[in-house]
Amino acid sequence: MLQPITWTGHSVRLLDQTRLPRETVYVEITDEKQMHDAIRRLVVRGAPAIGVAAAFGVYLGVRDEPYATFEKRFDEVCDYLATSRPTAVNLFWAIERMRQVMKNQPIYRATPDQVVRNWKDALRAECEAMIAEDHRVCRAIGEHGLKLLEQLHAGAARSAAPASSSSFEILTHCNAGGLATAGYGTALAPIYLGIEQGKKFHVYADETRPLLQGSRITAYELKENGVPVTVICDNMAPVVLAQKKVDAVIVGADRIAANGDTANKIGTLGVAIAARHFNVPFYVAAPTSTIDLATQTGAGIPIEERAAAEVAEFGARPTAPAGVDIYNPAFDVTPAELITAIITEHGVATPPFGKSLAALCGKK
Amino acid sequence: MLQPITWTGHSVRLLDQTRLPRETVYVEITDEKQMHDAIRRLVVRGAPAIGVAAAFGVYLGVRDEPYATFEKRFDEVCDYLATSRPTAVNLFWAIERMRQVMKNQPIYRATPDQVVRNWKDALRAECEAMIAEDHRVCRAIGEHGLKLLEQLHAGAARSAAPASSSSFEILTHCNAGGLATAGYGTALAPIYLGIEQGKKFHVYADETRPLLQGSRITAYELKENGVPVTVICDNMAPVVLAQKKVDAVIVGADRIAANGDTANKIGTLGVAIAARHFNVPFYVAAPTSTIDLATQTGAGIPIEERAAAEVAEFGARPTAPAGVDIYNPAFDVTPAELITAIITEHGVATPPFGKSLAALCGKK
Repeated sequence: MLQPITWTGHSVRLLDQTRLPRETVYVEITDEKQMHDAIRRLVVRGAPAIGVAAAFGVYLGVRDEPYATFEKRFDEVCDYLATSRPTAVNLFWAIERMRQVMKNQPIYRATPDQVVRNWKDALRAECEAMIAEDHRVCRAIGEHGLKLLEQLHAGAARSAAPASSSSFEILTHCNAGGLATAGYGTALAPIYLGIEQGKKFHVYADETRPLLQGSRITAYELKENGVPVTVICDNMAPVVLAQKKVDAVIVGADRIAANGDTANKIGTLGVAIAARHFNVPFYVAAPTSTIDLATQTGAGIPIEERAAAEVAEFGARPTAPAGVDIYNPAFDVTPAELITAIITEHGVATPPFGKSLAALCGKK
Repeated sequence: MLQPITWTGHSVRLLDQTRLPRETVYVEITDEKQMHDAIRRLVVRGAPAIGVAAAFGVYLGVRDEPYATFEKRFDEVCDYLATSRPTAVNLFWAIERMRQVMKNQPIYRATPDQVVRNWKDALRAECEAMIAEDHRVCRAIGEHGLKLLEQLHAGAARSAAPASSSSFEILTHCNAGGLATAGYGTALAPIYLGIEQGKKFHVYADETRPLLQGSRITAYELKENGVPVTVICDNMAPVVLAQKKVDAVIVGADRIAANGDTANKIGTLGVAIAARHFNVPFYVAAPTSTIDLATQTGAGIPIEERAAAEVAEFGARPTAPAGVDIYNPAFDVTPAELITAIITEHGVATPPFGKSLAALCGKK
């Protein structure tokens, strides 16, 4: 599987996801400014991957700093990277982890040189640990999610036609796959795990306007990994759901409020409403690092608005009249009552989410 | 206002809507093959405009035909043009009108030359009458629709904040404007009529993937006619509806079944479901020629599937991995129970539509 983010020993290697599926190009990131730009421009995207990228950004920003100015510089770099994107809470969570690393460093008798070397080593080790951790987290999400899908199929087999031998039909929006994380992905993890176990899957991938992460990235990674996929425009999802072609919708998340309200890529809300209308289960798959217990409801989640040109142009070719007003929110909030379950690495939360999410986060 | 279809006296002049908003180019259509191609490629589109175009196509196909072969040729041309697009019933309705013109020609003593000249004159006159009629029909739809919107605003003013002086906020999908008809349009007719009367409007235009008739055509014609418009991606409509920014959704139709089920551009169903979820009125505006009493429900409406490249490419630039499976239905069916009212030139139909539509069609 393609790796969206790797540590080379001296730089961070990012797969430039703005150029998929036409070109597979990697960029080398060597300082915090390049990382800020890469996050902002969506070279690296997906809440878990953004978290890892931001942590590495912090390390790159201080790795050449001397003892005297290190702590001041560290704070500046953390604050600076926190401005790269506002919605995905994993970004802030990862930066906070880096701050904790600094706070938790033991105080001992050493030369300033030794102290600053220890700091840098600890920060880099934390970044590398986050990559390894993300692999385990994605796998665990995959296991819990697959179990849920199997129960669904078993239920359908009992109540209707024999579904046990047929393929799992999944609809997803945007990309919450391997290219959104360091590992298997979140929404796509149950699919990859199921395929490993010889189960059959077929995925409908919403293209996900305006930046087409569904058709460019989800369809690309599923195809590369041998999973049958059909691309549809976002506005076709209700038709596919109406035709009873889908067993379940699974999407990722950028931030989950304490009550279960979930911010995810723009268009998720519409899919959730249609899924409810046609009585199809709607699952959110995300690591507990995406759950923001400090934010009570979706109303408290900041929603990034992006440039009009993302909607009004495609490859520098205009798709709308010059100068027309454009509204381009990058995310929407799906209210908890439209969500069937939230799949995390620690298990599956079901309504009421206020209670179940707090319990899962307690297991951290 | 730009005219999508005009009769020059010897040819049909079509505005090439595939090239909007970048270029304003007209094409001259002189035979039925060119017209078939223009309808199929969406040079001319919109159910009412397709009807007029098909009628002219019939005339162009027989205008040089001699008496001996005229009737056989007439049938062939009618059958041929009926294959250009399957969903919009106006196409079949207009061709049927041409057949009726032939059936209704008086039998009288005349030379073959006189007879065939009379046939041709009658067919051409019917086409020209359809253009004039469409202007009247669009205006009548505008009047009925505007009255409905005013009642809505008056109701809102009574129950909540003073809305009477504020602008009407409308969301529309695809293009059911002046460029979809010979006149004012259907869904946009109440807006143009209201603007004429000094009322304020603001329109959210769904871009309408894959062919972007919303951002390319609706935004273009509203802007040209001085109506404030904001373009959004299709998947942002639920957010705009959730934010209570919209007084009403108004869309056009390609075919309305006897029970009110309505086929319209792909994505309409999702908007209707979201409008119902957020309790926003959802109106369909269409001439009675779009009502197909012979088709009982939406299940009987043929849905055109179009080429994968419409989704997988933009301006020859790939937007999805090469060879990936694509599903591209051009229309969907919104069930009658999601429709608040259907606005026609003869008045407004409300549920139960089986009864109200039959009554309106009786007024034809």
